[in-house]
Amino acid sequence: MLTLHDLSLSGNCYKVRLFLALIEVEYELIAVDFMAGQHKTPEYLAMSRFGEIPIIQDGELILRDSQAILGYLARKYGSEAWLPTDASGLGQVMQWLSTAANEIARGPNDARLVQKFGFKLDLDVAQTKAHRILQLTDQHLTQQNWLALDQPTIADIACFPYIALAPEGGVSLDAYGAINQWIDRIKQLPHFIGMPGIDPAP
Amino acid sequence: MLTLHDLSLSGNCYKVRLFLALIEVEYELIAVDFMAGQHKTPEYLAMSRFGEIPIIQDGELILRDSQAILGYLARKYGSEAWLPTDASGLGQVMQWLSTAANEIARGPNDARLVQKFGFKLDLDVAQTKAHRILQLTDQHLTQQNWLALDQPTIADIACFPYIALAPEGGVSLDAYGAINQWIDRIKQLPHFIGMPGIDPAP
Repeated sequence: MLTLHDLSLSGNCYKVRLFLALIEVEYELIAVDFMAGQHKTPEYLAMSRFGEIPIIQDGELILRDSQAILGYLARKYGSEAWLPTDASGLGQVMQWLSTAANEIARGPNDARLVQKFGFKLDLDVAQTKAHRILQLTDQHLTQQNWLALDQPTIADIACFPYIALAPEGGVSLDAYGAINQWIDRIKQLPHFIGMPGIDPAP
Repeated sequence: MLTLHDLSLSGNCYKVRLFLALIEVEYELIAVDFMAGQHKTPEYLAMSRFGEIPIIQDGELILRDSQAILGYLARKYGSEAWLPTDASGLGQVMQWLSTAANEIARGPNDARLVQKFGFKLDLDVAQTKAHRILQLTDQHLTQQNWLALDQPTIADIACFPYIALAPEGGVSLDAYGAINQWIDRIKQLPHFIGMPGIDPAP
């Protein structure tokens, strides 16, 4: 049985839940008590010494990192369309997985950690980084409907949560028309689910 | 013809040069004049609006992001061993690609940008992050010879440069015995090449 160690307010956990919903895979959800520091207990660290959420267990395999988890799930349970096997398609998807792990994590995600959860990070720096990556992404999305290829891929799923949650970090999306249209397209995907801060399409 | 837009002192460019050497692929190297801001010219931004180095061109395809480039090259020119196609192997490699794009970039890489190139980033924060990820990586490498699987993969190539260059950011590797042994193993790979700050094995 596939198990997800989850935190409901985490965008990184939500991207895994969202993808599992989109590809209609059943799994067991184990809620991690983040405020009580359950992700830093010896039991949790024995599963992943990084002490991060989410992690998944699938048989013997334990995986950390939401991007890697999306890659694993796409290859194991998804279709070729979500993560192509050919070099060009794979490379184009991977570009945006790095963007999710780097620019989006250090931009809109960090800003939200400060504003919503009181993390002691530099809000100015995070908001400035957020607007830079939002601008680049918006320009990119004026030219194509999906981030990496002609169809939705795990690149879109990896980047979507913290872009859509940017307003919770004090980063308005009003100026980014192409991003707003892309958010609407994602919300129209069959079996889409939301999370607190991300409503499904009406 | 495969073309690499390159900066010799960049660890992200070096990881691409290193991997191309290891898999014995010929390419054309175009040196980008970073100090003159050539990566921010309209011509360069037309290739990649992110304005980052490295990028590769292979026929019609243009790819940014060193991790994505490694993935593309492994799939197109490398063997299955460098980037497995099965879900479990792929996921385990991808975990460390995210680590390269996130923790290693914001740790030892940022510290080096301050110390060696005068970037205005918080050196204390970068060095603290560097030691955290070095410690986690060192613990991991006490249990296995290579980061992701039983053989070297692009996970090792992606993480190697900025870990090996950590001393240039004022981050000593002396305390990390397993990392030093891993560095030596990478240097013993056939066709290994160094860069300024990373000498080949004697």
